[in-house]
Amino acid sequence: MAGNRRIGILGGGQLGRMFLENALRYDVDVHVLDPDPDCPCAHLATSFTLGRFDDRDTVLLFAKDVDVVGIEIEHVSVDALMELERQGKTVIPSAATLRIIQDKGAQKEFYVKHGIPTSAFTLIENGLDLQRHAAILPAFLKTRTGGYDGKGVMAITDTADMGRAFDGPCVLEPRVPISKELAVIAVRGTDGTTVAYDPVEMVFDPTLNMVDLLLAPARCATSIIDAAKALALDVANAFNAPGIYAVEMFLTPKNELIVNETAPRAHNSGHFTIEACASSQFDQLLRAYMGWPTGDTRMHGQAAMVNLVGEGGTGTPQLKGASELLAEPGTFIHLYGKRETRSGRKMGHVTIVAPTSDAVDKAVKVAKAHAKVVPQEKNKTTKNTTV
Amino acid sequence: MAGNRRIGILGGGQLGRMFLENALRYDVDVHVLDPDPDCPCAHLATSFTLGRFDDRDTVLLFAKDVDVVGIEIEHVSVDALMELERQGKTVIPSAATLRIIQDKGAQKEFYVKHGIPTSAFTLIENGLDLQRHAAILPAFLKTRTGGYDGKGVMAITDTADMGRAFDGPCVLEPRVPISKELAVIAVRGTDGTTVAYDPVEMVFDPTLNMVDLLLAPARCATSIIDAAKALALDVANAFNAPGIYAVEMFLTPKNELIVNETAPRAHNSGHFTIEACASSQFDQLLRAYMGWPTGDTRMHGQAAMVNLVGEGGTGTPQLKGASELLAEPGTFIHLYGKRETRSGRKMGHVTIVAPTSDAVDKAVKVAKAHAKVVPQEKNKTTKNTTV
Repeated sequence: MAGNRRIGILGGGQLGRMFLENALRYDVDVHVLDPDPDCPCAHLATSFTLGRFDDRDTVLLFAKDVDVVGIEIEHVSVDALMELERQGKTVIPSAATLRIIQDKGAQKEFYVKHGIPTSAFTLIENGLDLQRHAAILPAFLKTRTGGYDGKGVMAITDTADMGRAFDGPCVLEPRVPISKELAVIAVRGTDGTTVAYDPVEMVFDPTLNMVDLLLAPARCATSIIDAAKALALDVANAFNAPGIYAVEMFLTPKNELIVNETAPRAHNSGHFTIEACASSQFDQLLRAYMGWPTGDTRMHGQAAMVNLVGEGGTGTPQLKGASELLAEPGTFIHLYGKRETRSGRKMGHVTIVAPTSDAVDKAVKVAKAHAKVVPQEKNKTTKNTTV
Repeated sequence: MAGNRRIGILGGGQLGRMFLENALRYDVDVHVLDPDPDCPCAHLATSFTLGRFDDRDTVLLFAKDVDVVGIEIEHVSVDALMELERQGKTVIPSAATLRIIQDKGAQKEFYVKHGIPTSAFTLIENGLDLQRHAAILPAFLKTRTGGYDGKGVMAITDTADMGRAFDGPCVLEPRVPISKELAVIAVRGTDGTTVAYDPVEMVFDPTLNMVDLLLAPARCATSIIDAAKALALDVANAFNAPGIYAVEMFLTPKNELIVNETAPRAHNSGHFTIEACASSQFDQLLRAYMGWPTGDTRMHGQAAMVNLVGEGGTGTPQLKGASELLAEPGTFIHLYGKRETRSGRKMGHVTIVAPTSDAVDKAVKVAKAHAKVVPQEKNKTTKNTTV
C-alpha cells in the first residue's frame, strides 16, 4: 500500500465513491461509515461499517483503528471529530472548521471577522423575530443548521411568505443582484501551501433548485478569474487547516465578488476536475489525508459538467442516450451506483472536455438532449441490449 | 447501471484492476475470473469467480450469465471463446484474433499475409531443427506459445547458445538493427471505426528485461509518429474485429517501421493514457464492450511512465518516496494492490504529464531516484506514519 495511513471517511455517498475511485489507484486503505447498506461506497471501500456518522459514539468506535478521518457530508458529529483530534488523529476538515460551517450564522460571522466579502445578513431567532425585518425584503431565509442541496433555503418576497417561513434560528439575507454564480475549489495542503482550480460558472435549474450545468473555467474576464481564485484562497487560509474548500460566490453586476457559502469537502462544482484537470479534487483530498504535497490544478481545455438527475419516477436506474453522448469527443459519464432512481435525485453527471468553448457547448446540447436516467421498464428482457 | 450489458473478464491482474477503476465511473457490472483469490481485481469486481481462465468448462460456466467476454491476459481458453461466440455473445478480442496471437509463428505469418512489415523469421520445430540455422545468427529465439513479459525469448548469438535453447516449436528471427522500440495502442470500435494514440517510445531495462521507462509521444519526427499510427491501424484492421491492439514495433536506423508483436488487450505501454489522454485505453475497452463509440485519444501534454518494480526481496509491499515524487507537478502513482512484493515483480507505475519534455525528464529523474516498492520492515509500528 502507498504508505501506512489508514483513512476513515464519514459518509458513503457519491462523493465518497469518486474519492475511492481515485484512491484505488494508490492502493490505500479506505474505511467508510454510512447508515445505508446500499450506499454508493458500500461495496468499494476496504471495509464498510453500517452506522450513523452523526452519532458521537458510533464515529469514535469506527475511527478507533484509522489514522486519518475525513468527511463527505457536513452533517457528522463534530464532538466526535474534536475527540479524535485530541487523540492525535489527523482530522480533515478540522473540527473547528466544520463547527463553523455547520452553522450558517457562525459561517457568516466568520467571513466578517476575517475580512472575506459576503452579503449583508441578520441572524433570526424564530418566525416571530422574522416579522420585525419586513423592511429588508426581498430576501433569502436559510436555516442555520441542517440545510442541504437547496433544502433549508427559501425566498421571502413579501409578508405573506413570512407567515410560511422556517420557525427557528435562521440567517436572513437581503437579495443581492447577481450576474453569475461562481465556485472555486481551493486546496490547502498539510504543509500549509495552497492551490486553487479555475472558477466554475454554475447554471442553476430553477425547477430542480440545483446546479444543472457548470462551465469551467467560468466565462469571465481574466481579472475576475484571478480575483475569484484569490478570494477562495483567502477563505482556505482563514480556516487555517488542511483540506479542500468549495467556495461558492456571487459576481455582482458591478463585478464584485462576494462569498455565499463554503463546503469543506469535495463538491459537485469540482467534479469537472476528474477529467479536465491534472489532479482532481479527490486526488487533492487523498494527498492531504496522506500528508503528500498538493496536486497540479492545470486544466486540459474548456470543460462543462451536466448533472444527471433522475426523471420519470422511481425504480432501478437505467441510463439512456449513452451512445449518442459518447459519440461527442471528450465526453464522460459518471453514474454513482445508487440502487434506486427518483425524479430529482442526483444519479450521476456528464463531463465534457474540449479544446474550445464552442465544442463544449455543442456537446452540452447533446448531453441535455440525450443523456437521461430513468426507471427501468419492468419485464423487459435485458440480454444483449444496451441503450 | 449504464445500459444492460454484463461484462465478464478473464483474468484479474493489474490490467483488470485499472479497467475496473474506470468502469466504476459508469456503474457497469463487471465479473472477473481468476485462479488467485488475492488477485488485484478480487475485491473490486461486481462478482469474483475463483477458477482457471485457461480451462474451457470453467470459462463457459463463468460466462453463462454475461453478455460480453473480455480478457486481460492472452493465456485463456480460445476453445471457450469460440463456443461463446457461437452462443451469440460479444467476445473481445475475437477468438480468431486470439488464436493467431497466442501462436507467435501464426502471428508472423498473419503479418506477412496482410502486408504488415515484420522482421524475417523461420519456424523451428525443435532444438535439432534449430542447429540447421546457424548461418543466420545472431538471432532471437521465441517459443511459439506461452511466452510472457520477457519469458520465452532468448538471444542466440553462437552455436553454444543453440545447445541451451528452447527445445520445442519456436520462431527464430535474425537480429535486426533497432534505433528505437515503439508501441501504439490502436482501437477498433464495434462500428468498425478506428482511432490510435500517439506512439510511445519504450526504454528497456536490460537487467530486468522489461520496460523501465516509456515516453509519450515517442521523440521522433512527425512523419514517423504518423507512420507508426497508420501501421498500428493497419494491424487492427487486418484483425478485422473490435477491441484494442497494442502494436509493438521497431524503428530501424533507416527509419523503417516493422511490427514485432501485438497484444489484443490493454497493455503496459498504454498506461500513460489514464492521465495523459482524454479517454484511456481502459475507457476504450469499456466503450467497445458496451457497443459505445470510440473515445478521444488526444494527449494533454508530454508524458512518461515509469514502472515500479519490486526491489529488496519478498514481503508485504511498501511504497517509498511518495512525498518526494508527488511534489513534482503532474505526477501520479498507481499501485496494483498485489499482496506480496518480490524483486522484479511489477508492483505499480508512475505517470508524469507535463507541458514540456524537459519537465517530464526532470520528474522522471525524481521518480527513478525516490519511488520504490520494497518489503515492509517487520515489527515496525505503522501507526500515524507514512513514507
